[in-house]
Amino acid sequence: MTSIAFIGLGIMGEPMAAHLVDAGHDVIGVNRSSESLDRHVDHGGKRADSVADAVAEAEVVITMLPDSPDVEGVAYGDDGIYANARSGSLHLDCSSIRPDVGQQLAAAGAKAGIAVVDAPVSGGQAGAVEAKLSIMVGGDDGDVERARPLLEAMGSTVVHVGPAGSGQTVKAANQLIVAGHLALLAEAIVFLEAHDVDTAAALEVLGGGLAGSKVLETKAAGMLARNFDPGFRVDLHHKDLGIVTTSARDVGAAIPLGAHAAQLMGSLRAKGHGDLDHSALLLLVEQLSGRQPKDTSTAPTGS
Amino acid sequence: MTSIAFIGLGIMGEPMAAHLVDAGHDVIGVNRSSESLDRHVDHGGKRADSVADAVAEAEVVITMLPDSPDVEGVAYGDDGIYANARSGSLHLDCSSIRPDVGQQLAAAGAKAGIAVVDAPVSGGQAGAVEAKLSIMVGGDDGDVERARPLLEAMGSTVVHVGPAGSGQTVKAANQLIVAGHLALLAEAIVFLEAHDVDTAAALEVLGGGLAGSKVLETKAAGMLARNFDPGFRVDLHHKDLGIVTTSARDVGAAIPLGAHAAQLMGSLRAKGHGDLDHSALLLLVEQLSGRQPKDTSTAPTGS
Amino acid sequence: MTSIAFIGLGIMGEPMAAHLVDAGHDVIGVNRSSESLDRHVDHGGKRADSVADAVAEAEVVITMLPDSPDVEGVAYGDDGIYANARSGSLHLDCSSIRPDVGQQLAAAGAKAGIAVVDAPVSGGQAGAVEAKLSIMVGGDDGDVERARPLLEAMGSTVVHVGPAGSGQTVKAANQLIVAGHLALLAEAIVFLEAHDVDTAAALEVLGGGLAGSKVLETKAAGMLARNFDPGFRVDLHHKDLGIVTTSARDVGAAIPLGAHAAQLMGSLRAKGHGDLDHSALLLLVEQLSGRQPKDTSTAPTGS
Amino acid sequence: MTSIAFIGLGIMGEPMAAHLVDAGHDVIGVNRSSESLDRHVDHGGKRADSVADAVAEAEVVITMLPDSPDVEGVAYGDDGIYANARSGSLHLDCSSIRPDVGQQLAAAGAKAGIAVVDAPVSGGQAGAVEAKLSIMVGGDDGDVERARPLLEAMGSTVVHVGPAGSGQTVKAANQLIVAGHLALLAEAIVFLEAHDVDTAAALEVLGGGLAGSKVLETKAAGMLARNFDPGFRVDLHHKDLGIVTTSARDVGAAIPLGAHAAQLMGSLRAKGHGDLDHSALLLLVEQLSGRQPKDTSTAPTGS
Repeated sequence: MTSIAFIGLGIMGEPMAAHLVDAGHDVIGVNRSSESLDRHVDHGGKRADSVADAVAEAEVVITMLPDSPDVEGVAYGDDGIYANARSGSLHLDCSSIRPDVGQQLAAAGAKAGIAVVDAPVSGGQAGAVEAKLSIMVGGDDGDVERARPLLEAMGSTVVHVGPAGSGQTVKAANQLIVAGHLALLAEAIVFLEAHDVDTAAALEVLGGGLAGSKVLETKAAGMLARNFDPGFRVDLHHKDLGIVTTSARDVGAAIPLGAHAAQLMGSLRAKGHGDLDHSALLLLVEQLSGRQPKDTSTAPTGS
Repeated sequence: MTSIAFIGLGIMGEPMAAHLVDAGHDVIGVNRSSESLDRHVDHGGKRADSVADAVAEAEVVITMLPDSPDVEGVAYGDDGIYANARSGSLHLDCSSIRPDVGQQLAAAGAKAGIAVVDAPVSGGQAGAVEAKLSIMVGGDDGDVERARPLLEAMGSTVVHVGPAGSGQTVKAANQLIVAGHLALLAEAIVFLEAHDVDTAAALEVLGGGLAGSKVLETKAAGMLARNFDPGFRVDLHHKDLGIVTTSARDVGAAIPLGAHAAQLMGSLRAKGHGDLDHSALLLLVEQLSGRQPKDTSTAPTGS
Repeated sequence: MTSIAFIGLGIMGEPMAAHLVDAGHDVIGVNRSSESLDRHVDHGGKRADSVADAVAEAEVVITMLPDSPDVEGVAYGDDGIYANARSGSLHLDCSSIRPDVGQQLAAAGAKAGIAVVDAPVSGGQAGAVEAKLSIMVGGDDGDVERARPLLEAMGSTVVHVGPAGSGQTVKAANQLIVAGHLALLAEAIVFLEAHDVDTAAALEVLGGGLAGSKVLETKAAGMLARNFDPGFRVDLHHKDLGIVTTSARDVGAAIPLGAHAAQLMGSLRAKGHGDLDHSALLLLVEQLSGRQPKDTSTAPTGS
Repeated sequence: MTSIAFIGLGIMGEPMAAHLVDAGHDVIGVNRSSESLDRHVDHGGKRADSVADAVAEAEVVITMLPDSPDVEGVAYGDDGIYANARSGSLHLDCSSIRPDVGQQLAAAGAKAGIAVVDAPVSGGQAGAVEAKLSIMVGGDDGDVERARPLLEAMGSTVVHVGPAGSGQTVKAANQLIVAGHLALLAEAIVFLEAHDVDTAAALEVLGGGLAGSKVLETKAAGMLARNFDPGFRVDLHHKDLGIVTTSARDVGAAIPLGAHAAQLMGSLRAKGHGDLDHSALLLLVEQLSGRQPKDTSTAPTGS
C-alpha cells in the first residue's frame, strides 16, 4: 500500500484515482469542485482541502491537470508540492503539458529531493474508466520502475520512453498524429459523400486495408452521424497542437501536415466549436467544400 | 467453374490469378513479358498471345494493370476486350484508375452487351499472395453479385460501395488517407528522434493508443531501419494522388492535408526516389528538418 | 493595315479588338452573342457569322476565349481555323489555356501552314480598356516579331518568353503568384483586424515597404470595403490554378504555397462564390478565423 | 535639438543613429562591440559605457535590438532604461519584437513615468542607409507626435497604426506577407526554369502585371543568380515568423499560407542556411523539385 496524494479529479483523474483505491492504496484527493471529491470519498478515498495538506505525508504525488500553468501552479510556491512534500517522495505528473515545463519540474523537484516522472496518457475517458490507458513515461530508470505498479493500475500499455520530459514529447507526437488522422478521415468522408458513394460501406472496406486506424475505428460512426459530443474537446487538442508546434520549432523538426492540421483545429475553435469533440474537424472540411451539414436528426448517435 | 481471361500478371496480378486457378477456374493469362506467364502455366493456368484471343470465349475478363491508359489500351479498339468478348460476359477491372475512366468503361461495355465492374484492391503484394486483399467494388447489384465469388477467392474484405466508378473513388480515398498517414508518421519519427526520445519505445506506445494505425503497424519498423524496399512504389502512389486531386477538384471537395501530402509525394519522386517504398516520405521530412539519414547499416531490416 | 479575324468579343476581347480598329486594321469579329458584335461594328469593325467565313481571307486570326476546350473548338474541325484559314496566315491565341494545348495548337497549325503564337494577357478589364496589358508571348522568333505590332496596340508590356506554349506557362506562373498574394493579403487583413489595429493605416505602411505589391495597391481598398464585384472572377482563377497544378506536376516542380492557394480558391468556389472577384479570398480567411464579415454598408466601395 | 540615447548600433542601428546626428541631435550610443561605436563618434556622436549612463540625461531613448529578450534585457532591472531614465522621457523601440512584449514595455514604462512607443521598421539595410525606412508606429497620439520628427529623420513612410504594440503587430503582418511573397517567387522561378522558359524575360513581364511586387523588384535578380548574400537573414525571418504564428494563434486568426511559409523558412534554417538572405527559400523549393542548383559561377551577382 502506497500513500498517494492525487491532485485533479476531473473527467480523467476521477476514474484513475478510483483504480488506485481499488488496488488498495491510500489516496488523498484534492480538487477545486467538491462533487467529484464526494464521489472519491464514497469510493473509499480520502480528501484534503489544500495541496500542502495532501502532499505532506504522501509517498507519491500524482497530478492530472489541464495545462502547463495549472501544473506549475500546484508545483511551485510556498503552498506547492515541492515546498511541502517529503524529501524522497515521487511526483508523477499525468497531465499533458509542454516538454520543457516537464523538464523544469524535474529540475525543481530534484532540488527539493523529490523525484519527478512525467506520464501523460492516451485513450480518453473510456480508457481511464476501463484502466486501458496508454501511458508514455519519462524519467530516470529507478523512478520509473517505482512508478510502474501505480501506472499499471491505471493503464494497459506503460512504456518508458526516455528521460524527464520525454513522456510529454511522445504525447505531443501522439496529438500530432491523431489530429492529422482526424483531418484525413474528414477529407475522405467529404470526398466520398460528394461522389455519392455508399460512405458507410466505403469506410468499412477502408478500415480493412492499409488506411485502417484507431481513429477510423472509434470516430467514423460518430462522424457519419454528425454526433460530436466529446470525447476529447477541440479546445484541448488545440492547446496540445500549440505544444507540438513549439516543440517542433525548438528542435528544427519539419511537421508540414502537423502544422496544417494545427491551422484547421485552430479554425474550428475560432468558429466557436471549442466544446465539440475533435472529430468535428469534419464540420470544417465540409464547410470548406461548400457542403451543408447533412440532416442527421434521424441518424443513430454512436460515437 | 468459370472461364476467365486474366490480363496483367504483374506483382499483384500473378498471385491473384493463381488463387483463381486454385479455386478451380479455367484462367487464360495474357501478359507482356513471358516469365510470369510461364509460372502461371506451371501453376495450372493457360496462356494466350493476345487480348482478342484470350477474351473470345471467356465468361469473365479480369484486368489488373498499372494506370488508366493501360486499361483503355486493352479495352478499346479492334483488338480490345469490348470488340472481342462475348455479349453477356463480365469485365472485372481490378486496376486502380481514374473514376471517370471507370465510368466510361462501363458505358462502353454496356454498348457491347458486356457488364463492367470496377474492383480495385488494397493490401499490397502481401495481401495479394495471402488472398487477403480489401476490394472496393463499384457496379450494378447483379453484376457485383456475379463477380463476388471470384473476388472472394482473392480478398478477405469485399464490399460493394456503389455504381460503376465507385470502387475507384473509394480506392482514391484510400490512397489519400494512406499518403497522409505515412507523412504524419514520418513527421512523428523525425520529431521524436530530434528530441532524443527512445523512438522505438515511443512508437510502441503510440500504436497502443488513438494514434494507432495499419500504417504504423506495418511500416514503422522499416522506417526506423531506413529500409525502403518496395512494397508500394512512390511512383504509383504519386500517380494515385493525381487521381485523388483531380477527383476532389471535380466535385469541389476540399482536401487540405491530402493536397499537401500529394506535394510531398511529388517532391520525393522529383528527387529521384520514385522506385522506393512510399514510406520513404521519411527521407523527405528528414531532409526538411536538416537531419542526416541515420546510419542504419547495422540495423535490422524488417518491413 | 492588316486583315484580322477576331474570335471572342467578351469583356476582354471587345476592347482589345477596338484598339486594333483604332490602329487602322480591318477587324472582322465573331462572337456568340450579337450585342458586342453590334458595338464592334459601330466602332468601325466588321462581322462574320462563322469562324470559317471570318478566317477565310484574314492575314491574322486572334482568339480570346475562356478555356482550352473553347479554343480547341474553334481551331479544329471542318469549320475551324486550321481548315479554313489561308496557308501563311498567323494564329495569335490571347486566351489563357493549358500550355500543352498551346503546343498542340502550334503543331496542328504548322501542318496547315499556319503559324501559331500564344500571347495570354495580364491586367484585367482595366488593362484591356486602357491598352495597358502585360502580354507574355510564346512562339518562333519571326512569328512573334510579325505579331508584335498588333500586340503593342493592345498592351504596354510585350515580352517574348520562349517557344510555343511558353506564354501560357508564364501566364500560369502569373496566376500562381497572384493567387498567393491575394491569400496572403487576406491573411494579413484578418490578422490586423483581429488585433484591432488601424488596418487602413497599416496597409499604407505595408505598401511602402518590402511587402508592397500590385495586388495590395489595386485590391486592398476593395477588400477593406468588402466590395467583391469582379474584376477577375473566382471561377476563372480556379480554372487557371488547375492549369498551374497540372503543369507543375508534369515537370516535378514543387509549388507548396501555390497548391495551398489552389485549395483555398477551390473552397471559395465550392462555397458558391465563383462569381465574386478573386480578392474574395478574404471571405474565406475570415470564416476560417471565426469572424463575421464586417458591416460595410456605409463603407466606400472602391476597388 | 533632442538629447538621445541610442542602444544597439548594428547593421540597422548605426546608419539610423547617423541620420539623427546629421539632423542636429545629440546622440549617445551604446553597443556591445566598440567598432561601430568608434564610427559613431567619428560621425559626431557620443558614447556611453552602460545603458544606465546613456539614458540618465536623455530626453529620448531609442532601442534597435535583435529580439524580445534583448529589449527586455536593457529595459528592465536596476541597470535598465526604466530604472534610470528621467520621468517624462520617451522610449522609442525600433526593434522587431513580440507585440505582447511591446505592450508590457508600455505598461512598465508608464509606471516609471516614461512614455513608450513601438516603431519597428521595414526596408532593410538599404532603407536604413538611405533614410527610406517604412516605420509602423504604435502608441498614444501625443507620444507618437513627439517621436515623429525623429522617425522622419530615419524613414520616408511613418504611419501611426494604433496603441502600444500595434507597430509590432503590423511588422508581424509585414513579415508574414514578405515570407509568402518570397516563397511564391521561388515557386514561380522553379516552375519557369523547369519548363525551359526564358525566366528573366518572364519575370520582367510578371513584374509589369498583377503579379508585380517589391520582392520581385528587389530580389528576383539575386535569386536568378543564386546570390544569397544577406540582406535579411533567414535566422531573423524565422524568429519573426515565430512571432507571427503565436500572435495569430492568440487572436484566432487563420494564416494558412503564412503558417506554411513559416514551415519552409524553418526548414531552410534547419538545413543550415540561417545565415543566407531569406530569398534563399529558392534553394529549398529547388530541392523539393529535385533540381540541382544552377551553376551560376559566371552569372551576374546583383541583389
